[in-house]
Amino acid sequence: MKTIFKNVQKTKPLIHHITNYVTVNDCANIQIACGGSPIMADCIDEMQDMSNICSGLVLNIGTLNKTQIESMLFAGKSYGNQNKPIILDPVGCGATTLRTETTFKLIDELKLSVIRGNLSEIKTIYNKTGNTKGVDVAEEDLINLDTTSIIKMASNLATKLNSIIVITGQIDIISDGKDTYIVKNGNPAMANVSGTGCMLTSILGAYVASNPENPTTACAVATALIGLAGEKANSYVEKNNLGNASLRVGIIDAISNMTSNDLIEGIKIEKV
Amino acid sequence: MKTIFKNVQKTKPLIHHITNYVTVNDCANIQIACGGSPIMADCIDEMQDMSNICSGLVLNIGTLNKTQIESMLFAGKSYGNQNKPIILDPVGCGATTLRTETTFKLIDELKLSVIRGNLSEIKTIYNKTGNTKGVDVAEEDLINLDTTSIIKMASNLATKLNSIIVITGQIDIISDGKDTYIVKNGNPAMANVSGTGCMLTSILGAYVASNPENPTTACAVATALIGLAGEKANSYVEKNNLGNASLRVGIIDAISNMTSNDLIEGIKIEKV
Amino acid sequence: MKTIFKNVQKTKPLIHHITNYVTVNDCANIQIACGGSPIMADCIDEMQDMSNICSGLVLNIGTLNKTQIESMLFAGKSYGNQNKPIILDPVGCGATTLRTETTFKLIDELKLSVIRGNLSEIKTIYNKTGNTKGVDVAEEDLINLDTTSIIKMASNLATKLNSIIVITGQIDIISDGKDTYIVKNGNPAMANVSGTGCMLTSILGAYVASNPENPTTACAVATALIGLAGEKANSYVEKNNLGNASLRVGIIDAISNMTSNDLIEGIKIEKV
Repeated sequence: MKTIFKNVQKTKPLIHHITNYVTVNDCANIQIACGGSPIMADCIDEMQDMSNICSGLVLNIGTLNKTQIESMLFAGKSYGNQNKPIILDPVGCGATTLRTETTFKLIDELKLSVIRGNLSEIKTIYNKTGNTKGVDVAEEDLINLDTTSIIKMASNLATKLNSIIVITGQIDIISDGKDTYIVKNGNPAMANVSGTGCMLTSILGAYVASNPENPTTACAVATALIGLAGEKANSYVEKNNLGNASLRVGIIDAISNMTSNDLIEGIKIEKV
Repeated sequence: MKTIFKNVQKTKPLIHHITNYVTVNDCANIQIACGGSPIMADCIDEMQDMSNICSGLVLNIGTLNKTQIESMLFAGKSYGNQNKPIILDPVGCGATTLRTETTFKLIDELKLSVIRGNLSEIKTIYNKTGNTKGVDVAEEDLINLDTTSIIKMASNLATKLNSIIVITGQIDIISDGKDTYIVKNGNPAMANVSGTGCMLTSILGAYVASNPENPTTACAVATALIGLAGEKANSYVEKNNLGNASLRVGIIDAISNMTSNDLIEGIKIEKV
Repeated sequence: MKTIFKNVQKTKPLIHHITNYVTVNDCANIQIACGGSPIMADCIDEMQDMSNICSGLVLNIGTLNKTQIESMLFAGKSYGNQNKPIILDPVGCGATTLRTETTFKLIDELKLSVIRGNLSEIKTIYNKTGNTKGVDVAEEDLINLDTTSIIKMASNLATKLNSIIVITGQIDIISDGKDTYIVKNGNPAMANVSGTGCMLTSILGAYVASNPENPTTACAVATALIGLAGEKANSYVEKNNLGNASLRVGIIDAISNMTSNDLIEGIKIEKV
């Protein structure tokens, strides 16, 4: 795990983002905080050039539009041709037809290394591509869905799509179909910051690009990293009676201050 | 007032924003801080779907472009057809023809529940739609404009447009044509943070959506809420010798920490 | 130097930005912090109106697209016709053909008062327009490039383009071809915050607009200002064991709290 952490700092991967305009600054600063280097670019005319100089691509559909979809597809193919990792964050998949259909288009046409979403987003993907309807519980019931069922869904979907699936929530699950990890770091207050999911997706880009031989473990470590940062930041916020905007700052701060020893001490990863 | 505050926390309304890319992250985090849930989306292809799942729409013309105008009109009609509230922030209305004409187009074609602006923006709207030229003082003189005249303008405009008018400045005025409130919370330092107006508009979305039976009082409470947050944040910033970026963080923090008792204690609302 | 600083506070120049969506909020808040007033607008329909009311234009190609290029050219001509200053930040010039070609297009077609970039970006511009190939060292070697050569490049390029050249890095160099300044303020940790370059470019807009008789010295003072703010913010961050997100907040805070006496005390400018 230490090696995975240190590989990011050593290689300082340049990660290209086509992402939303809401949380983009946090993605940039957290990318630097974790050891990578961010570039945000969405004009189709520079997608080929970007794919030549960057080590990985993050696609986030948080404020999707038609021009962006074209750039995502074009860029995705360039990265795919160069065997460079692509990480997809299907923000709001299931909420609108545009987001759901775009998610499936990206899945169909690109070679995605990782898909990270919350349970609703992943469930939406699963129910269209899987053969089972067993997980189509209502959003309200998701909390009661047992971990075993979620693990099964993640593992099946990973196998089906040949991508690593990262489901984040109260418990995080990471699976490539063969190996599955559960991460128990994090804090419920993180949900009060807009974009903690986007931030993790951004970090996943750096971790996967820097750890081509252990991408699944790298995803688990990255997920634990932001969870641990959330724990540290939340302690600070509560002690000083601050609020959700300070928590946002604190999460990024905690990642930029994290040492490999801090991580080893605080990480809660289990292989199942 | 306590009920109005608690209704937002209870209903956690999903508020759709078509807004500028400058202050959008602050709008997202302050929406969470006050108890609502933000979604930012501007592609016309998902406006219908968004209007079906969201409880209200915030339109902010801070970085307007032609594509966005089409989406605003399309979305606005969908929300209107479902009797869901629409809040308009006519940022820079009066500064350019594009912004002024778009403001009038949105007013003409949509059923706006609330229009929130500063005195210059509201004056621009008033002078085109009203019959009087009495308020066309130069920007420099606005400070000297007496409160009585501003109240009259707000009240007349509200009646004329059948929308709640919220004018923010040294003193905030909220009127629906029948009832008018003056809010005396706030701090001049808030003008040193880009987007405190946008943030209030975002909060108004949540407050009006959660309080359909008292939208005018809800607007007054929301206005007092951010003013009170500004007072608290400014005390903290001054005590710790910080600056405007910390004030920005502090305002959002203060809202996320505000209890209904804090609000009742600090609120300065008068009905006139 | 005190006069230059105070002129910004006195004139409160309105600075129009056509900029990227990553660091735009920081540019807005740092513009206010230094005494100016920001407007962000990129729709071609309001470029003429904006140029009539604003005192200067900042062009930043950080998330460039084709629509933006058209607006930049149109706006740039309007500002040029009114002899109002234009500041260019050629973010990523050299990284993609789109950015390099757009940079040259803007240089060719507009009357740029200032170009601010890092050494790689300015080198890219220099090697295409200059007659010498002497500075085309690899990025890795740039650190070893002696200050004398960089000064010569800045000075030659300034003369060639009739623009003030600002190169920022470990040492900052400002030249108009006749006068050249070296600024030694700043801190390496500033590189861990996304957008410190963009923020300086934004400040340069206010400083040049408010000091039409000493634009080169104004650029040097502005460069020292953010460097000094970075030093102060970094001390605070280190003392309190914070990270890069707090450094971002701290830089803006430090500028909003800076007095002319603080500046005079801490400034490290040499004329060469």
